[in-house]
Amino acid sequence: MTDPGGSVRALLFDVQGTATDFRSTVVEAAEHIVGGRWPGIDWGGFVDRWRAAYFAALTAMTGPDGAAGAAGAAGAEWSSVHAVYRDSLRRLLDEHGVRLDDTEVEELTLSWQRLRPWPDTVAGLERLRSRYTLATLSNADVSAVVNIAKAGGLRWDAVFAAEMFGAFKPSPAAYLGAARYLGLPPERIMMVACHKYDVVAAAGLGFRTAFVARPLEFGVAGAVDVTYDRAFDVNAADFLDLADQLGC
Amino acid sequence: MTDPGGSVRALLFDVQGTATDFRSTVVEAAEHIVGGRWPGIDWGGFVDRWRAAYFAALTAMTGPDGAAGAAGAAGAEWSSVHAVYRDSLRRLLDEHGVRLDDTEVEELTLSWQRLRPWPDTVAGLERLRSRYTLATLSNADVSAVVNIAKAGGLRWDAVFAAEMFGAFKPSPAAYLGAARYLGLPPERIMMVACHKYDVVAAAGLGFRTAFVARPLEFGVAGAVDVTYDRAFDVNAADFLDLADQLGC
Repeated sequence: MTDPGGSVRALLFDVQGTATDFRSTVVEAAEHIVGGRWPGIDWGGFVDRWRAAYFAALTAMTGPDGAAGAAGAAGAEWSSVHAVYRDSLRRLLDEHGVRLDDTEVEELTLSWQRLRPWPDTVAGLERLRSRYTLATLSNADVSAVVNIAKAGGLRWDAVFAAEMFGAFKPSPAAYLGAARYLGLPPERIMMVACHKYDVVAAAGLGFRTAFVARPLEFGVAGAVDVTYDRAFDVNAADFLDLADQLGC
Repeated sequence: MTDPGGSVRALLFDVQGTATDFRSTVVEAAEHIVGGRWPGIDWGGFVDRWRAAYFAALTAMTGPDGAAGAAGAAGAEWSSVHAVYRDSLRRLLDEHGVRLDDTEVEELTLSWQRLRPWPDTVAGLERLRSRYTLATLSNADVSAVVNIAKAGGLRWDAVFAAEMFGAFKPSPAAYLGAARYLGLPPERIMMVACHKYDVVAAAGLGFRTAFVARPLEFGVAGAVDVTYDRAFDVNAADFLDLADQLGC
């Protein structure tokens, strides 16, 4: 394909993992907050379990297709992802025998709202922004996505998040809600993510797709699927490679 | 008051009128599209009537408090503001005996999505952004707010619009929805607008308020209320003055 982004007008980005390096950010926050108090803890493994607990909680709340049903649609009943992270953290800390006070728990949970961009993210977005509307489509809270962008210098044209649609990715309601807000049909929007379930769900709804490899998402020894797949419109090594391939 | 923005973390901006000069933009588009074909038309007055028709249509759709009810909450049934402008334009063109084809009607309607910023807007936002989260709260469609920002170089941290809340300003649901997405209580958010009904509605919900005078909103001879009022936390001549008063 010579012009994979030809009719595309907007790119939708996953944030946690695709645009930002959550593991190194949260590990650093944990080490800073805990200091030398529990020297036996492997904080990298801890953050991996924390992230897995978040995924499990989202699935339990919403069912396998990500739709939160009446609670989500009602808005006020929506559970914030911040609370999901905080509750998961408290359970994990108990399991590891780590005692933090409420302020420390809150501070560590808030590290998910200051996730560092990958080294290519800001420069890649700057190039892509010249040609496309750039928006997020994140399962994180709207406020978290805004805080991450502000802290990391990510410049989005719009912030969309599951909270706005009462449905987490990979629910169709999240992707189609973002398309409705953009005023564009799915085929003129490209979903960009490092998680294949995310791009596959978007593809099933008619969106164009870009898979971005993030081999360090779970650290240097982490098991991550970074295999390119011709089923996606673009397979990219990072956001700069994505910009190259989209002619930006 | 020495520090009017002291506890404020985020500013919410009205877009059409407060951040952008819709009248000169739309008049210019009309003159460009129509050319010399109907030399008798006063396009300034035409745009004023178009804007008034938009306000009347929004009020008729939603009731006096701006809430769109079941249709709005259902999302899919929401009437786009673009369609409201287009339908109002068709009626006004008929009344003035002006015949445009569908492409011209669409192009003229789309001029509302390319509104020029006021001369102080971009520089003022850049200063304010160093200290505050900057978001829109507009009655225009999400896609229109995104297009206006992209065309005019307005850098928002988030785009919020009535479409997201199923309710137009001055409905409480619009203001409170934006506060929920920001993750902040109303008293830590300042509503910035040149229309007093907008700041008054926000104040009634506990938001801080900034009134910005836009004496040219309806042209040099237009009747606009630009009287400062001590009931607002800030009264400002433009966004640069607002930045000065908020210590940015």
